[in-house]
Amino acid sequence: MNCPFCLKTEADFFMETSRFAAIYNLAPIVPGHSLIIPKQHIESLFDLPDEAFDEMMQFSRQIMKFLCDYFHTDAFDWAIQEKPPAGQSVAHLHLHLIPRYENDLPLPGDWYVQMVASEKQQIDIHTRARLSEEALKQMTERLKQAAAAYFTQNQTNIT
Amino acid sequence: MNCPFCLKTEADFFMETSRFAAIYNLAPIVPGHSLIIPKQHIESLFDLPDEAFDEMMQFSRQIMKFLCDYFHTDAFDWAIQEKPPAGQSVAHLHLHLIPRYENDLPLPGDWYVQMVASEKQQIDIHTRARLSEEALKQMTERLKQAAAAYFTQNQTNIT
Repeated sequence: MNCPFCLKTEADFFMETSRFAAIYNLAPIVPGHSLIIPKQHIESLFDLPDEAFDEMMQFSRQIMKFLCDYFHTDAFDWAIQEKPPAGQSVAHLHLHLIPRYENDLPLPGDWYVQMVASEKQQIDIHTRARLSEEALKQMTERLKQAAAAYFTQNQTNIT
Repeated sequence: MNCPFCLKTEADFFMETSRFAAIYNLAPIVPGHSLIIPKQHIESLFDLPDEAFDEMMQFSRQIMKFLCDYFHTDAFDWAIQEKPPAGQSVAHLHLHLIPRYENDLPLPGDWYVQMVASEKQQIDIHTRARLSEEALKQMTERLKQAAAAYFTQNQTNIT
């Protein structure tokens, strides 16, 4: 199994439901760039049963709100690329949650270019822009604690 | 009211639910580029009650599947930009549904650059890349008929 998202375990999740997990991006294009993935290997958005799809979307919205709070912004990109012509490199369904700031990238289109590059870095272990294992672990731990506090404080039931 | 999406009426919708509508983009970046919008003026994804949010997402997935069928592809971009730092020009919640093909745009990042430009064309009446009123009307009519046939054939109940 060469799917990098299937190798993720509970230690990599900063929040989870029974079927989905929130992970910090190994190669974030801006601070906060996270992914929502099904724990099982599902390739297409169309392969999710209705109930699981609802769960994924509600969970994603809750995590997006938490990320906006944590990274002090109300702007975000929320994107799925399905299949390589759309820029998908890892054939495991994933939704990008990207907090944004004014002028956070030199050019507006950089977001997409970098997201495509970031996808490739999930599977190419020889690139440089990835976080170190230690940095990713620390960020995941920080988000895990912050998310636990946030959802308790806001009395939100995670889906 | 200067919101261009609030000016849309039933004649502009190629499919609708009680609370949401599917419209063809006035300035499509590739063939098939459509938008899902709430009929009411809602700005933020976070302003939708849970039930309406579920309806929007399920409806969007059904329309995305129909667009993939109609435009003969299985690749797509599915994106929300919230607030101007993320590239949103029209302050009315909208989800971009974009069927994609291999090499449909000269550069991968063109998708986002063009989407941002396309957003601006919704509110700037002096740009050139927009469809004519007649062309938009014809495309909407074609999609309306095709969608009606598609959802009957697939026995899918629109949300």
